[in-house]
Amino acid sequence: MLNRREMLAAMAASGLYAGPVFAATRFTPGADGFVLASRGQAPAAILVDPQDLPGVARAARDLAQDIGRVCGKDAVVLHQGDRLPARIVLIGTLGHSPLIDKLAAGGRLDVSGLAGQWESWITQTVAHPFPGVDEALVIVGSDRRGAIYGAYDLSRSIGISPWYWWADVPVSRRDHIAIARGRHVQGPPAVRYRGIFLNDEAPCLSSWTAEKFGGMNAQFYGRLFELMSRLRINYLWPAMWNNAFAVDDPANAALADECGIVMGTSHHEPMMRAHKEWTDNHQLYGNGAWNYATNREGVRRFFREGIERNGNKEAIITIGMRGDGDTALESTGSLASDVRLLETIITDQRRIIAECLGRPAETVPQVWVLFTEVYKYYNAGLKLPDDVTLMFADDNVGNLRRLPLSSERDRKGGFGIYFHMDMHGGPFSYQWINSNPLPKIWEQMNLAHEYGANRIWIANVGDLKPLELPIEFFTAMAWDPKAVDKDRIAKWTRDWAATQFGQTHAQEIAILLSRYAKYNAWRKPEQLSPDTYSLENYGEAERVCAAWDELVVRAQAVDAQLVPDQRDAFYQLVLYPVLACANLNHLYAAAARNRRFAQQARASTMAEAAEVRRLFRRDRELRDHYNLQMAGGKWNHMMDQSHIGYFDWYPPETDIMPAVSEIELGPDESFGMAVDGSSHSWPGYYLPPSLPTLDSLSRRKTYIEVFPRGATMAPVTVRADQPWVIIREDQAFGVSPHDRRYWIDVDWQSVAPGMSEATITVKGSATVKARLTAIRATAQQEREAKGAWGGLAGAFCVPATGFARSVEARGVRWEPIPDYGQGPAAMSVFPVTAEPFPDPATAPRLEYEIFLAEAGSYHVDLVTSPTLEVYPGRHLAVAIGLDDSAPVTQAVFTPEAGAAQDFLGSRHAANTAANARRMPFTIKPDRPGRHVLKLFMHDPTIVVQNIIIYRSDLPQSYFGPPPMERG
Amino acid sequence: MLNRREMLAAMAASGLYAGPVFAATRFTPGADGFVLASRGQAPAAILVDPQDLPGVARAARDLAQDIGRVCGKDAVVLHQGDRLPARIVLIGTLGHSPLIDKLAAGGRLDVSGLAGQWESWITQTVAHPFPGVDEALVIVGSDRRGAIYGAYDLSRSIGISPWYWWADVPVSRRDHIAIARGRHVQGPPAVRYRGIFLNDEAPCLSSWTAEKFGGMNAQFYGRLFELMSRLRINYLWPAMWNNAFAVDDPANAALADECGIVMGTSHHEPMMRAHKEWTDNHQLYGNGAWNYATNREGVRRFFREGIERNGNKEAIITIGMRGDGDTALESTGSLASDVRLLETIITDQRRIIAECLGRPAETVPQVWVLFTEVYKYYNAGLKLPDDVTLMFADDNVGNLRRLPLSSERDRKGGFGIYFHMDMHGGPFSYQWINSNPLPKIWEQMNLAHEYGANRIWIANVGDLKPLELPIEFFTAMAWDPKAVDKDRIAKWTRDWAATQFGQTHAQEIAILLSRYAKYNAWRKPEQLSPDTYSLENYGEAERVCAAWDELVVRAQAVDAQLVPDQRDAFYQLVLYPVLACANLNHLYAAAARNRRFAQQARASTMAEAAEVRRLFRRDRELRDHYNLQMAGGKWNHMMDQSHIGYFDWYPPETDIMPAVSEIELGPDESFGMAVDGSSHSWPGYYLPPSLPTLDSLSRRKTYIEVFPRGATMAPVTVRADQPWVIIREDQAFGVSPHDRRYWIDVDWQSVAPGMSEATITVKGSATVKARLTAIRATAQQEREAKGAWGGLAGAFCVPATGFARSVEARGVRWEPIPDYGQGPAAMSVFPVTAEPFPDPATAPRLEYEIFLAEAGSYHVDLVTSPTLEVYPGRHLAVAIGLDDSAPVTQAVFTPEAGAAQDFLGSRHAANTAANARRMPFTIKPDRPGRHVLKLFMHDPTIVVQNIIIYRSDLPQSYFGPPPMERG
Repeated sequence: MLNRREMLAAMAASGLYAGPVFAATRFTPGADGFVLASRGQAPAAILVDPQDLPGVARAARDLAQDIGRVCGKDAVVLHQGDRLPARIVLIGTLGHSPLIDKLAAGGRLDVSGLAGQWESWITQTVAHPFPGVDEALVIVGSDRRGAIYGAYDLSRSIGISPWYWWADVPVSRRDHIAIARGRHVQGPPAVRYRGIFLNDEAPCLSSWTAEKFGGMNAQFYGRLFELMSRLRINYLWPAMWNNAFAVDDPANAALADECGIVMGTSHHEPMMRAHKEWTDNHQLYGNGAWNYATNREGVRRFFREGIERNGNKEAIITIGMRGDGDTALESTGSLASDVRLLETIITDQRRIIAECLGRPAETVPQVWVLFTEVYKYYNAGLKLPDDVTLMFADDNVGNLRRLPLSSERDRKGGFGIYFHMDMHGGPFSYQWINSNPLPKIWEQMNLAHEYGANRIWIANVGDLKPLELPIEFFTAMAWDPKAVDKDRIAKWTRDWAATQFGQTHAQEIAILLSRYAKYNAWRKPEQLSPDTYSLENYGEAERVCAAWDELVVRAQAVDAQLVPDQRDAFYQLVLYPVLACANLNHLYAAAARNRRFAQQARASTMAEAAEVRRLFRRDRELRDHYNLQMAGGKWNHMMDQSHIGYFDWYPPETDIMPAVSEIELGPDESFGMAVDGSSHSWPGYYLPPSLPTLDSLSRRKTYIEVFPRGATMAPVTVRADQPWVIIREDQAFGVSPHDRRYWIDVDWQSVAPGMSEATITVKGSATVKARLTAIRATAQQEREAKGAWGGLAGAFCVPATGFARSVEARGVRWEPIPDYGQGPAAMSVFPVTAEPFPDPATAPRLEYEIFLAEAGSYHVDLVTSPTLEVYPGRHLAVAIGLDDSAPVTQAVFTPEAGAAQDFLGSRHAANTAANARRMPFTIKPDRPGRHVLKLFMHDPTIVVQNIIIYRSDLPQSYFGPPPMERG
Repeated sequence: MLNRREMLAAMAASGLYAGPVFAATRFTPGADGFVLASRGQAPAAILVDPQDLPGVARAARDLAQDIGRVCGKDAVVLHQGDRLPARIVLIGTLGHSPLIDKLAAGGRLDVSGLAGQWESWITQTVAHPFPGVDEALVIVGSDRRGAIYGAYDLSRSIGISPWYWWADVPVSRRDHIAIARGRHVQGPPAVRYRGIFLNDEAPCLSSWTAEKFGGMNAQFYGRLFELMSRLRINYLWPAMWNNAFAVDDPANAALADECGIVMGTSHHEPMMRAHKEWTDNHQLYGNGAWNYATNREGVRRFFREGIERNGNKEAIITIGMRGDGDTALESTGSLASDVRLLETIITDQRRIIAECLGRPAETVPQVWVLFTEVYKYYNAGLKLPDDVTLMFADDNVGNLRRLPLSSERDRKGGFGIYFHMDMHGGPFSYQWINSNPLPKIWEQMNLAHEYGANRIWIANVGDLKPLELPIEFFTAMAWDPKAVDKDRIAKWTRDWAATQFGQTHAQEIAILLSRYAKYNAWRKPEQLSPDTYSLENYGEAERVCAAWDELVVRAQAVDAQLVPDQRDAFYQLVLYPVLACANLNHLYAAAARNRRFAQQARASTMAEAAEVRRLFRRDRELRDHYNLQMAGGKWNHMMDQSHIGYFDWYPPETDIMPAVSEIELGPDESFGMAVDGSSHSWPGYYLPPSLPTLDSLSRRKTYIEVFPRGATMAPVTVRADQPWVIIREDQAFGVSPHDRRYWIDVDWQSVAPGMSEATITVKGSATVKARLTAIRATAQQEREAKGAWGGLAGAFCVPATGFARSVEARGVRWEPIPDYGQGPAAMSVFPVTAEPFPDPATAPRLEYEIFLAEAGSYHVDLVTSPTLEVYPGRHLAVAIGLDDSAPVTQAVFTPEAGAAQDFLGSRHAANTAANARRMPFTIKPDRPGRHVLKLFMHDPTIVVQNIIIYRSDLPQSYFGPPPMERG
C-alpha cells in the first residue's frame, strides 16, 4: 500500500522521520545491507545484554514484534545462553551492556562522542561481532533512553507508526528489510525533558480506561509509555482528577521507572503526590487543611511520604504550592507575606528531598511552575534556588506569557514551558477536538527555543486523543527545533500523513489536517455560537460553511479511495474531525438563520429549526460512530466530551442544541425580502432597503433575497431600472428552496465612469424598491489603482503578506509564517530574538501599495495574533505610517489592565477566543489615489495577519472584509 | 344589573363620575324631580335652538338615543315648529341660543358666572319655561363645548358609559329616570386643551378602520369625536402614518369642527398638514426636499396651503419643524445656525398664519413641541413668541423631561405636556397593551399641574384601544386634578369599574385593572425576555408568575359571575389583558426554564420547550378571541400588534416564539440536583452545592430541586444529618411532575443560638451533599431586631413605606403614593413644589429601624422611580445617613452623560425598561445590632420605592430581595 519510493522522495528532506536509519532502510527484494528480515528466512534475532538497564529489553521485545508486524514473523529475542544466530540486532546502553562495551573496547564499535550524551544513540552495522555471528546491527545508547529510542527508531524506520496501536494505523507488509551498512548517530535532543500531561480526563479518558483496562492501571500506562517512547516523550504528568498514579495501581510507578519515563506531578501537585491523595485522606494530616500557614506539619508529612515513596525512581519533583485543587493559594493577607510563605515552603520541600533521598537537593531535578496566579509571586521577587527549573506556563490557550530575559538565562535549572493543547478552565475550556494548528505551535515554541526555555517542555494534552498530530509535532520540535522550521511545517505534516496513510494521499490528507485545525482555530468549536460569523455582512457565515464543505468533500473523496484497514485510522485522525467540525459550523449557521429568519418573518424559519435539530442529531451520529463502530468500539467513550452549547468556562453537562424559534406564518402569497449587508426585511422596516455600493475596482457582487412569509408566495419579479445591472437568480443561503437569492452585479462596460444609481424593484404581493449605487473608476483611478489594494467604496482588507516591498535592517526582516492565522500566512519578525527598533526610520518595514478613493481620515485595524508580551520590559509595539508622514507607534494593549489578573483579563480572553487582536491606527491621506502604507517593526514576536482599512463604520463581522483579489 | 344604591354610595366621593347631575339622578320608580323618562310615558323631548352653534344639536340627538338605551324609547328631538310637550330638555349655548338667552333674560334661568367661562355649563330645572311646557331641564353651556359636555354629562348620569360603543359596555335598563330639581354648575376644566394622539396606527387601528369603515373617514372619526366629547377630550392629533386627516376624507375636518373638536397635527407636522401630504406630493414643492435651508419657498407654500385649507376651523396650529417624518431636523452645520433657522421658520409660519387668517398671529392658538432632540434648540436659547404654547414632551416612556421654571410661568401661551401611553420609537416600542399604571400617570401629571404646565395635555394613545382606562384617567385629571388625589386613585378606578360593570364586582375589577397594569409596568411586556426575572434567586420568576396566576383566577371568577352581555366588555377591558399578559410572563419563564434546564441537563428540558410552544399558541388563541369572537368580530385587527420577540426598538414583523433548546437525555436512572440561589447542577459542577444561609430573623426557606436526567430516575432520597432541618417535598417550578422540589426549613426551637451547620444528602444513582448553614439569633439579637428590618444573613429589602418615623419640616414631608411601583406604595415629597432642602439636618426625613448582624460596611441601593430632573438647576438629590453619622447626599445620575442625547442615553433607557433606578449608597455601622437608617429629602419630585441593604455581592435578580416580613 505504501509506495516506498515516493515516500522516500517525500521524506528525504525531513529531519524528523527521515532519520539516517530511515534513510538507510531498503525494502527492495534482495537489497543489500544488513538484512533484518527476508521472506523465507528467520528475521535477525535481537540481543540485549541481561545486565543492561531496565527498559532496554522491553524496547527490544517491542522491536521484535514490530518486525513481525512488517514481515509476518516476529524476531526472536535471545536469552542468556541462547546460541547466537548469524544475524543479530544488538541493543544496549553504553557502560551498562558488557556486550556493547566489549565491542567498543575491541574497536569494533565506534562510540566516540557518545559517552555522557543525553538520550543519544548510534546505529551501526558490525561484521562478525561475535563468534558465529556474521553481522550485527548494533544500537548503542548513551543512556538507557538513548538505547530505547534507538530501538524504536528502527521500528519507525521499517514502517511502524508510533500510532500503530493508538490510532489503528495499519502496517505495510514487507518481504525484505535491509539496513544499508554504516554508522548513524542520533541525539541529543534540544529539550532535555519532553512531556505530556494527561489532564481533565473525564469523561473520555477515564471512561475509556475504565471500560478497556479497568482503570488507569499499569495495563493502561504500559500502552501509554510505549507510545511515549516511540515518540521520544520522556516526561509525564499523569492523569490526576480522581486519579492517583502511585496509588491506583502500585505497579504504575515501577513500570514508569522500568520504561525510562521520568515521572512528575502537575503544577499544583507538589512532591510526587496526587491531589486526590490529599482529598481522600487530608483529615489524617494535622488539621486537614491544605494550608501551609495553618497546617505546616500535616502538609510536610504529606510531602515527605511522597518523596519517600518515589525513592530513587527518575522524576522531576514539582515544588511550590498552590491552592486546594488547581486553585490559587489561599492568601495569608498580603502578597509579600504570601511570597515569604512560598519561600518557606520551597525551603522545607528541598530539605525533605535532601533528607529522604540522602543527597543534596540541588542534585535532584525539580520544577516550579508559574501557572496563572503564580506569576505574581515570582514577579514580586520570590527567590528560587538556582537549580530548580523555572517553568513558564502559557495563558492556557497556547500563548506564552513569559520567556527568560537574557540576564536570567544562565540559571542552572534552566527554564521550561507548560503549554496547552487542551484546557479545562479559564478563560474557556476546549477539550473536544484538535484546534491547535501547527504553525501556531511552531511560532510560540520557536520563541521558547530561541529565548532559551529549553530544559522542559510539557503539553497539556487532555485525553491524549484526538491530539495525535499536535502532540507529535510538539515533541518533534522539542527533539530538534531546527528540523522543523516555519517553511517546512506543511512538509512535516505531509510526511506525518504519509507515515500514517502512505504516500498516495499524503498531500491531500496533510491539507485536510492543517485546514481543519486552522479553521477550528479561527474560533474554537466550544466558543462558536450563532453570533460568531456574520450572516449579513461579507457573506461571512456562508464563506465559512463553504470552506468546511470543501474539506468534507475532499475528506470523503480520500476516504473512498483508502483501503478498508486504513479507514479506522482515517476516521479518527481526519474524517471525524472534518465531518464533526463542519457539521458544528453548519449547526450554528442554521441556528443563526433560524433567529434571523424569524426576525425577517421568513416562512423558512421552521425549516431552519428542523435543520438545527437534524445537525444536532448528526453530531451524535458522528460521535457514536467514533465511539462504537470505529475499530470495533476500541475507543468507546473517547469522544464523550460535550462540546455544544457552552454557557460558562466549563463544558456543559450534556450537549445543548442551539435554541430555535418559531413564528406564525404570514398571509398566504405574502413575501419578504432582505438585502446583503442588512439584518432588516421588507415590507416592514421603516427605512427603505439600500444595497452595499459596488465599485469597479473591488469587483464585489451583492444580492437581494426574496422569500415567502406565508404558506405560499405569489410570483415575485426582481427587475432593475438600469440596463447595466445584471441579476442572476440562485438559491439563498439556507435550507429552504423557496428562499431565493438574486445576485446583483454590474456590467462595468455599460456604465459610465463615476457614480450611477439604479433601483431594483421586487414585485410580488407588494412592491419593494432597493437602491443600488455603482461607482466605476475613471481612467485615472484605474491607472493609479493598478496593482494596489483598495477600491472606490467600503472597507477593504490587505493581507499581511500582500506587501510590495520588504525592507530589512541590520539583518532583521519581516517574514511570512505560512498557513498561520486567518489567511494564507502571517508576517512576523526574524530572527525572533532581534532587539527592538525604537526608531521607525531605521526599522525593518513592509510597504503596501494601497488605493484610497478619497482624501481624509481612515481607520487602519491591524489584525495581529493575540500573543503576549513574553519579554518583560518590551511592549510588543509596531508602527504604521502613510507615505512619508511620521509613523505612529502603538503598543499592543494586552495584557493591559488584565496584566495583574490571573487570567489576563476579559479583553485578552476575548482576543484569545477570537484568536486575533485588533490594533487601531489612523491614516490621513491628503489626496485621493495611490499611497504606500508602511508597517514598521518595533518589537520582535509580534505577528500580523491582516490590515483592515475603512472610513467610518465597519460593518459587523468576525473577520472584517475578506481580502480582496488584487486589483 | 346595576345596583344603583351601591353605586351611589361608592361614587359619592368622586368628583369625576359623581358630578352634581349624577348625584341628582334618581331611578327609583316614582322618584320625584324632573322626570326624564318613566315607563308608559314618552321621554322628555329634547330641544335645541336651531340658531345654536353646530355640535349642540348633535349632542342632543345622542342624548335622545342614550335615553332610549336606558328606558327603551328614544327621546324625541324637537324641530322648529314642533309643538312643545310638557317636559323638555333644553340644551344650548349662552349667547347663541335665543331660547336660552330669553329664559336667562327673563330671570327664569340663573346663568350668573357662566358667561366667558371655558367649557362650563349649568344644569337647572325650570318650571313652566315656555307656554305649554310644565318643566324643562335646561343645560346651558358657557360655550358650545360647555353645552355639548352638559348633554353628555346627563347621558353619563343616567348610566351611559362613554365607552358604551367603544368597549361594548352594556347599558342598564331603567323604568324611571328623574333629576332632582335644582341648579348644578360644572366647569371650567383645569387644563384648557385635553387631547389624544392616534399614533402608530398600523397594524391595528388602520386595519380595523379599513375593515369596518373603509378607512379613516368621517364615519370613523364621527365615532371617535362622540367618544372624545363624552370623555370631554377636546383636542386631537389625528392618525398620520399613511393617513392624512384633511385629505383622506374631506368631510373629516368639517365634522371635527361641527363636533367642537379642536384639531391639531402632531409635533413633527407643522401648519395643519399631514406628513403623508408631503411624502405623497413633495416633488411638487420646490426641489422636493423637506429642508427649510434649501427649499424655503417650496416648504412655505406647503405650509400656506395647510393654513388656508383649515381656515377658521378651531385648531391649535403646530409650528416649528423637525426632520422628514418624525426624525431630527437635518442640521445646517451647528446648533447655533439650526436655532437661527428654526427662529426663521417660526417667524415665517406666523406671518403665513396672520396673512391667511387675516388676524394677528398671537390671536391664533399655536403650539411648539419640545420632542426628543428639539429640547436642544430651546436649551440653546431659541426665542419663542410669548403667545405660543410651549409643550414639553416626556421621554416617550411617561417620564416628564421638563417643567416650567417659576420664572417662566407667566408666558401668555402657557405650557403643555405631550405624554406617552404607547410608543413606536426609542428607547423601545410598546404598542400592544396597557402598561400604564394610574399612580404613575398621576404622579407625573400632578407635577405638570402643580408646576403650571396646564394649557394643553395630550397623550399618545396609539390605536386608542386597549388604553381605555388610562385615557379616561388622564383626561379626568386634566379636567379636575384636585378631584383625583393620590389617595383616591383606587377609589377612582373602582368607580370606573362600577360604571362599566356595576357595583357588585367593581372592587374586584378595579384590583384586576390596577394590578395588571402595575405588573406590566414592572417591565413592559415588549421588554420581557427569558432573562428578565431570576430563576435562581429569591424565587423571583415564580413569584411573578404566581402574582399573575392570582389575577387570572380572580379575573376568571369575575367573568364567570357576569351576565352574558357584560362578557365582551370584560374581555377587552380586563380578561384579555390579564390572561394574555399572564400567559406572556409564563411564556418567558418557561423559555428561561428551558434554557436553564438544558444547562442543568434536566430531562424536563423538552417538556419546557413544549410548554413554550403551547403558551405561544395560547397567545394567538387569546388574540384571535379578541379579534374574531369578541363582540362578533367588531374589533377585528385591534389586537394585531406583534409583541413577542422584540430584538430592536421596533416591534418584530411577526411574533417570534422565544427560542427553545433540546438536549440529549442522560443515562437511564440518572438524576441531577440544583439548589436555590445557584444556576449550577450536580453531579457536574466542580464546586460542591451550598444553600443560602437561613436565619431565624429573616425566616426564609430555601430549597433543593431533584430531577431526572435520563428517561427514568432511580429513587432519590433527600436527608439531613441534623434533626433541626425540616424537609418537605413539593413540585418544582416547571411543568414536569418528575422534577421535585424539597423545601428546606429550620425548626428554630431545636437549634442552638449562633451558627449551625448541616449536610443535606441527596442519594440516588449518585450521592450529592449540599451544605446548609443556619443562624439562630441570640436572645440579645432577638431583642434588638424586634420590629426592625434586617436579618442575620444575606441581603434584605426595606420597603420605602416601612419607616418608623416621618419627620416633616416647614410643612414638607415624605408621603406615600399608594400602589406605585414595585411594592404597595412609594414615598415622595409633598407638596411637590417644595423648595429643595440642601441641608439634611433641617430636611424632611424618614427613619427606618434596621438590624445589622455585623459591624462594617454595607451597600444601600435606593430603588427610585426613573423619573427625570424636570426642574432645570435641580439634581433630584437625596441623602442617606445612619444613626447620627453625617448623611451623604447623592444626585440621581440620570440623565448624566445621556442628557445631551436625544433619547437621554442608554442608561436612562435601561432605567425606563426596568422602570426603576438604583442609587448606590454606603453605610458603615461601627457595631452590630439595631440602627436607624435615615432618608433625607434634598429635592422634590423624587420617588423612592425600596431600599436594598447588603454586605458584598447582591445575587442577580430583577427586583433584589423581596421585602421581608417585618421581624
